[in-house]
Amino acid sequence: MELAVLGAGSWGTALSIVLADNGHTVRLWGQRAEQIAEINEKGTNEKYLPGIPLPEGIVGYSSLCDALETMETVVLAVPTKAIRDVLRKVRACIQTPITIVSVSKGIEPDTHKRISEVIEEEMGPLLTDVVILSGPSHAEEVSLRHPTTVTVSAKNMEAAERIQDLFMNPQYFRVYTNPDLIGVEIGGALKNIIALAAGITDGLGYGDNAKAALMTRGLAEIARLGCALGANPLTFSGLTGIGDLIVTCTSVHSRNWRAGNMLGKGKPLEEVLESMGMVVEGVRTTKAAYQLAKKLGVKMPITEVLYDILFNGKDPKEGADSLMARVKTHEMEDLVNILGK
Amino acid sequence: MELAVLGAGSWGTALSIVLADNGHTVRLWGQRAEQIAEINEKGTNEKYLPGIPLPEGIVGYSSLCDALETMETVVLAVPTKAIRDVLRKVRACIQTPITIVSVSKGIEPDTHKRISEVIEEEMGPLLTDVVILSGPSHAEEVSLRHPTTVTVSAKNMEAAERIQDLFMNPQYFRVYTNPDLIGVEIGGALKNIIALAAGITDGLGYGDNAKAALMTRGLAEIARLGCALGANPLTFSGLTGIGDLIVTCTSVHSRNWRAGNMLGKGKPLEEVLESMGMVVEGVRTTKAAYQLAKKLGVKMPITEVLYDILFNGKDPKEGADSLMARVKTHEMEDLVNILGK
Repeated sequence: MELAVLGAGSWGTALSIVLADNGHTVRLWGQRAEQIAEINEKGTNEKYLPGIPLPEGIVGYSSLCDALETMETVVLAVPTKAIRDVLRKVRACIQTPITIVSVSKGIEPDTHKRISEVIEEEMGPLLTDVVILSGPSHAEEVSLRHPTTVTVSAKNMEAAERIQDLFMNPQYFRVYTNPDLIGVEIGGALKNIIALAAGITDGLGYGDNAKAALMTRGLAEIARLGCALGANPLTFSGLTGIGDLIVTCTSVHSRNWRAGNMLGKGKPLEEVLESMGMVVEGVRTTKAAYQLAKKLGVKMPITEVLYDILFNGKDPKEGADSLMARVKTHEMEDLVNILGK
Repeated sequence: MELAVLGAGSWGTALSIVLADNGHTVRLWGQRAEQIAEINEKGTNEKYLPGIPLPEGIVGYSSLCDALETMETVVLAVPTKAIRDVLRKVRACIQTPITIVSVSKGIEPDTHKRISEVIEEEMGPLLTDVVILSGPSHAEEVSLRHPTTVTVSAKNMEAAERIQDLFMNPQYFRVYTNPDLIGVEIGGALKNIIALAAGITDGLGYGDNAKAALMTRGLAEIARLGCALGANPLTFSGLTGIGDLIVTCTSVHSRNWRAGNMLGKGKPLEEVLESMGMVVEGVRTTKAAYQLAKKLGVKMPITEVLYDILFNGKDPKEGADSLMARVKTHEMEDLVNILGK
């Protein structure tokens, strides 16, 4: 079949490769004309996936309405900050409802909405279903056809299963389903917070023992917030929980980890964000999670410290040390809190 | 106070450093006279902790009975294979009961006993308590005083708290308690199996996405076996579960990962074990867990494949591919199994 992928960054392009490998035709939309020209003329997207030849089925579009014309299924792979703006433009292009597959991860600051809720709100009657695709999946590795497993979720699991079939590739891309939409979205969004924090401790030179402890406690606070929002605690033990947390905190490919690492080494936030050249979702998600934790009365010590480092000028070393020194000696007390809500 | 540490490998020596930093006197026993001479004369243990000067409070002993004389608390840091033999010699030295702190991780093949059970069996009335110390803690990092958090557990939690006080160091070594002795021991032992498997997929060049998926499913099967044995499922979300799994699968310091990595690159098992020069606990634990899973009817697909690679000459690539290709598409089915037992 033919479908549109909106967003020609590394993840949108890597997922287009999977779809093209599966025999589908992909209309890959991006805003920059020269990038689209490169995709169509040279068959590459060097800025985002250097050295990767794109398969034949991918056609670049710089006109959003052209890319969407007659499409029923649309993959949305733009930074979370741009989602509302892009969807308003999508609405102006289409007359009949579409299914949106969202592959971006975050929570909206101030509204505290999950991405699927933002999409529902913006699309209204022009939306058939929204499906979330998430899991431990660096784009670079997917584009190299390294074995990868992800999870899809939706309110309507039949829609999720249709998307599962589109993406499933027996050679290298396995897709699982999980009906816990809230848990899948929260795990995917909040792991970027812990990756930033893990980058900071690595930047400070604290080592693997400290990072493992931080990730363990990080997963606990993700699960606490998720469960307070109605997620199934088991989801946080799965691919979109632990799995995605591990890959984001320990891989050199992770932007959030890299940004944290620079912060830990003493670079100021503005300089870090500028030097990245790509969106660091965790910064925005930290603000949203911090607000949400306050509102719901959920304890999120790592998120709180990171918020102070990012937005209140707290010294990263002081912040990391305060996390290590928390007065608490009975591990079970903490653990019971994870699943106890 | 004064206490004995039996086993002058990297972990026994690193824990001796923590105890000495806390003001205790440590009798560090090792079998090789030249190693003990190096500890006492040069203040180093170069083979196991290269470049680390040992603090003053550590005194090397090559006579086991001399090391044990009048000691009430003894840290046991020998490879699991040597435990019964060492304890028989301990019994011959002492007249009054001792508390043993076990820091080795494994399950005994054939008997399927946890280390604390082996210690109880061997020591009989000469044992006051057995306390397990476990968690994400590479010896090399502890010896560098990098921040580290571990958990202690025992049947008698007062004994665990006494040991917590001995090891707790506000600068770099935090000790938590957890009353779930079975879960703490099973998590610590079985994570070495997953580290071997993760090393194999890394050695095969499968990348971080595949490794994260493997670790996620690995934790699920550890938890399944642990719960079948009576562990609290929450423990596997804590420091001795996820925490230790992360550090063992992702750190360059991990012997089990390094051994798996060589297997994945095509080296035969004997050659790998020879070239390590240190004990690879995961090999022995794989056999024990495999037997135990069969006996209890617990599904452990990663352990089964690893068993076939280690003991039945199965090709590592074929084994890893069969794990990736498992026919299963509903993630929750798997996850419910984790905590559902």
